Amino acid sequence: MQNNKNYSELALTMHEENRGKISVESKVRVKTRDDLSTAYTPGVAEPCRKIHKNKEDVYKYTSKGNMVAVVSDGSAVLGLGNIGADASIPVMEGKALLFKEFAGVDAFPICLKTQEVDEIVNIVKQLEPVFGGINLEDISSPRCFEIEAKLKKELDIPVFHDDQHGTAIVVAAAVINYVKLANKKIEDLEVVINGPGAAGMAIGKILLSMNIKNLIFCNKAGALNEKMDNLNWAQKEMLDITNIRNEEGTLAEVIKGKDIFIGVSGPGAMTKEMVATMNEKSMVLAMANPTPEIMPEEAKAGGALVVGTGRSDFPNQVNNVLAFPGVFRGALDVRASDINEEMKISAAYAIANTISDDEISPEYILPGAFDEKVATNVAKAVMNAALETKVNRI
Amino acid sequence: MQNNKNYSELALTMHEENRGKISVESKVRVKTRDDLSTAYTPGVAEPCRKIHKNKEDVYKYTSKGNMVAVVSDGSAVLGLGNIGADASIPVMEGKALLFKEFAGVDAFPICLKTQEVDEIVNIVKQLEPVFGGINLEDISSPRCFEIEAKLKKELDIPVFHDDQHGTAIVVAAAVINYVKLANKKIEDLEVVINGPGAAGMAIGKILLSMNIKNLIFCNKAGALNEKMDNLNWAQKEMLDITNIRNEEGTLAEVIKGKDIFIGVSGPGAMTKEMVATMNEKSMVLAMANPTPEIMPEEAKAGGALVVGTGRSDFPNQVNNVLAFPGVFRGALDVRASDINEEMKISAAYAIANTISDDEISPEYILPGAFDEKVATNVAKAVMNAALETKVNRI
Repeated sequence: MQNNKNYSELALTMHEENRGKISVESKVRVKTRDDLSTAYTPGVAEPCRKIHKNKEDVYKYTSKGNMVAVVSDGSAVLGLGNIGADASIPVMEGKALLFKEFAGVDAFPICLKTQEVDEIVNIVKQLEPVFGGINLEDISSPRCFEIEAKLKKELDIPVFHDDQHGTAIVVAAAVINYVKLANKKIEDLEVVINGPGAAGMAIGKILLSMNIKNLIFCNKAGALNEKMDNLNWAQKEMLDITNIRNEEGTLAEVIKGKDIFIGVSGPGAMTKEMVATMNEKSMVLAMANPTPEIMPEEAKAGGALVVGTGRSDFPNQVNNVLAFPGVFRGALDVRASDINEEMKISAAYAIANTISDDEISPEYILPGAFDEKVATNVAKAVMNAALETKVNRI
Repeated sequence: MQNNKNYSELALTMHEENRGKISVESKVRVKTRDDLSTAYTPGVAEPCRKIHKNKEDVYKYTSKGNMVAVVSDGSAVLGLGNIGADASIPVMEGKALLFKEFAGVDAFPICLKTQEVDEIVNIVKQLEPVFGGINLEDISSPRCFEIEAKLKKELDIPVFHDDQHGTAIVVAAAVINYVKLANKKIEDLEVVINGPGAAGMAIGKILLSMNIKNLIFCNKAGALNEKMDNLNWAQKEMLDITNIRNEEGTLAEVIKGKDIFIGVSGPGAMTKEMVATMNEKSMVLAMANPTPEIMPEEAKAGGALVVGTGRSDFPNQVNNVLAFPGVFRGALDVRASDINEEMKISAAYAIANTISDDEISPEYILPGAFDEKVATNVAKAVMNAALETKVNRI
């Protein structure tokens, strides 16, 4: 907590001194009349004419091909809730900055006042000309699923909700290395996801795509089941393909005999005693921020082989920065029209395989956030998957 | 023309080699875990909380205070017409670059697919959180008047349609120095504006605000008058306060005995013979681009004392870059809620007064585009006018 307090103060100073964290810069110099006549009128008319004649030339003569919109309506910002567009800006600028620092992607925050699904979809659609990709961020669930699905349908540039898929990719990477370490088979894993929100649902989807058979979602009342009358449409859809044995009961009850606990919920959801009832050589990914569902030392004491959190001060940090910069780098570089399941799974394997088999250990199933190989590996894997699934346009 | 051809080729090379002209950069470095924890989670939550508590803190902790949206729907791009949002991007990126190079303002292109007035207004309204000002660009007339008026009403950040007001400010600056040179009184000037579009109308308004009494608008059919049945609402409104002697006839007829010709029309609209019928010591501002309404040597041969064009290869270039960077610099620096008439007129005087009285000559009534004093002088004047008219918020 002391540590958190310091970062809060450091953050206020950093943000105030720099008046925010991003700037827009010229890639060309304008120091002479000739420069001006080339970058602006009359010369600029020529690239305009070319694009007017052939729309695809927009990738040749403008910044579009490397430019991502970081779109939020401020409805679910970090753990702060619905704080609105203005208050979400520091996060979206932060995201833009990480895009640049980790993968050389230009990204610009688009923080929208409206929280109406169809209005957000329409605005992003109208804004599309200058962007080569759309990264959705901190939009509340289940609205985020609808916004993403509609945008994917409407746009021919990649649309990616990072809170869902970024997290899911990194969790999948952890699972990939965990099975090697624990010498288990991926299809035999039994998994409980506590927190059926945006991230939880996407984690569920990617794990199912990776051939995990038994997956149970829990909310505060316990395992999701058909008798619950407060589930949203996305949770109901998920119920049809999960919890194959129709287990009921609290998290404490259904966690018994499971291999993996995935927490995208809140502090205190998991206990040492509950970990002790899990299958042997279990994995606990307790990602509530800043206070995990269970502290790593407690999870270890309960018998977990591997523990991961969302925090940088413990081993195995599940940090989206391992995924989104490389995912967009790869998608932009082949001008992909989509970021599909195959590209996401390839990204997960690329993150996992950045650590060689003999390096994997209980404290090291995920590479560190500053491992420079990660974004490059992810970008390559995503490009290849795009080519294989034919969503590339160059 | 040889010259233009070269710029076209240079422009294609410049735009392709750099893949556009702008990038988004980090103002802070993220090289360590501590950097990441300060610029992003968990530290970033603190500026978010502050802004949530006090909305004005968005100026303290984000890039908003220095960030301008360059908004276009691509409906009237340069002289190319309605080429659409995609093809307008090189111009909007160029504008963003000039904002940065001439006044240190961050600017980002927002090129909208829609050309519906109310939809554009709504989108810009929803986008407002990240922007400290809105520069409208290359939107066709009379739609641009409606969009600007509605946005000014809806937003408490400055909104400025550069094609109108940028041009108007620079023309006003030319008029201010012209009266000194010709030793005329501003209220006695008789002026004809050929081309009653966005720029023409704004030039008319600022000249009327500066106390010019007799102003006549012409279109291809001649002086606007109440018998014409094809005038738009903006032209009809203007008719009520211009052409006080109800003159009728072609441009060639009404230009007789006038002091100033202002062309925002097309090549060939003016002739040497017509200039010869103007009042003595006349001024011809022939701003059609790239080919002026009359070439400077012809206008001089007809007897004009001063000739200006939109081109950099002749003296007295009427270039918006003299106005908009400093106007926004000044408005942003006092967090103005508007860019009002007083601020525009102050900008015009600041541009004019950058040239001292004894420097003024027929070839030098406007400072050059690269005169570094201009943006600074304009910014100061605009700030002062904002303070005097109490639209400042700091």
